[in-house]
Amino acid sequence: MKTVKLTIEYVGTRYSGWQIQENGISVQQEMETALAAVLGGKVRIVSSGRTDAGVHARGMVAHFRTERDLPLSAFREGVNRHLPRDIAVQKAEFATPDFHARHNAKGKWYRYSILQAPVPSPLVWPFSWHIRAPLDNETMAKAAKAFIGRHDFTGFRSAYCDAKTTVKEIFSISVNREERMLIIDVRGDGFLRNMVRRMVGILVEIGLEKKSPSEIETILAHGNETPASLTAPPQGLCLMEVWY
Amino acid sequence: MKTVKLTIEYVGTRYSGWQIQENGISVQQEMETALAAVLGGKVRIVSSGRTDAGVHARGMVAHFRTERDLPLSAFREGVNRHLPRDIAVQKAEFATPDFHARHNAKGKWYRYSILQAPVPSPLVWPFSWHIRAPLDNETMAKAAKAFIGRHDFTGFRSAYCDAKTTVKEIFSISVNREERMLIIDVRGDGFLRNMVRRMVGILVEIGLEKKSPSEIETILAHGNETPASLTAPPQGLCLMEVWY
Repeated sequence: MKTVKLTIEYVGTRYSGWQIQENGISVQQEMETALAAVLGGKVRIVSSGRTDAGVHARGMVAHFRTERDLPLSAFREGVNRHLPRDIAVQKAEFATPDFHARHNAKGKWYRYSILQAPVPSPLVWPFSWHIRAPLDNETMAKAAKAFIGRHDFTGFRSAYCDAKTTVKEIFSISVNREERMLIIDVRGDGFLRNMVRRMVGILVEIGLEKKSPSEIETILAHGNETPASLTAPPQGLCLMEVWY
Repeated sequence: MKTVKLTIEYVGTRYSGWQIQENGISVQQEMETALAAVLGGKVRIVSSGRTDAGVHARGMVAHFRTERDLPLSAFREGVNRHLPRDIAVQKAEFATPDFHARHNAKGKWYRYSILQAPVPSPLVWPFSWHIRAPLDNETMAKAAKAFIGRHDFTGFRSAYCDAKTTVKEIFSISVNREERMLIIDVRGDGFLRNMVRRMVGILVEIGLEKKSPSEIETILAHGNETPASLTAPPQGLCLMEVWY
């Protein structure tokens, strides 16, 4: 039995998310179909986590186990030949027999991209949230520091989130302007459903002066279901890296 | 009569190029349809030049003349409401009555993007040429300097190019690596059909050590129809800016 660790890049636009769904196509299903074609039999792939419909990934990590003795190129070049153009295996590695993409993940890096411009940009629209009103990115960057450390993120998860533990650690968060884009990078040990999109949502409200920077601390301290009001749209989000 | 100058961004993937064609949809046609909806009548739009099928633009410039007395927002926000999501007017300005987007253009900046990676990247495939073999970008950057200055570019144009003058001036050309991308920026006073793509083609052959750097000078000096052998694919090319 071999355990194979894959690093996968995808454009989430056409998919109902990573996880197999009754309605709509998923990245997981495309991956399992491609792997089945290479392995000649059904296989289950386990990812480091789900991504929502429309969310992209540059470095999603997943694993599967197989009895077949194939070279790694079969799981990269070989699998890629069976994948649509918006999904591609970037790396295939043999892992230890007990490796588990979700249980062993030590951290993740998510990037959220905001287009700051008076009109939409065709070149970046599938990969960003377009906000016309100017955002005060320095105030956002300062306010974002309140997220760093261990907190109960109950106030920043989706009503549909079924995670048992809501305490997560944020290692770092930055807000940077790069030409017409505002880039928010968040690194942490784990994320609840919609958590990054809700963190970005409140930062945008702060950047628009609709909320006070102190509200982040208040919501984190209360640790209750009081939700952060705004959820940033999925297309601006990209899972950049998962580490072990 | 008013003359309006538009700066237009588009993703060229779905289009047969800028210019109206018998077969396939063009950016020009989409623009004229949207303008007609706003102006309530047919109008002809004149661009700074054509872009080929699949080529993108961040700053294509075009003009049209109209008797209608509408505010500039009608030609940006108003026109954008009638455009598909892969085309958007970025700027609308009133120009002098004799302004002509093609005749008055003083220079253009084109960018060509190459993905240097062992496997395809879904996130950048519509905007780059994927080359697996490693390119020697320092040799390419040095060789590219031969293009700078006034030359007869007959050896770097398409067989279908019908331009009367083939002498063009290249102001600058750079080859830079940014993570997994190789970015080639070219600025010049004008470009023949396929010229940037053929310039990139020979630079890639030099980067792969299939051609000697001195071949650029040889082709430029001969000034005949001997073609640069490789034409880079259109999806890596983007018209960044036109200036007047």
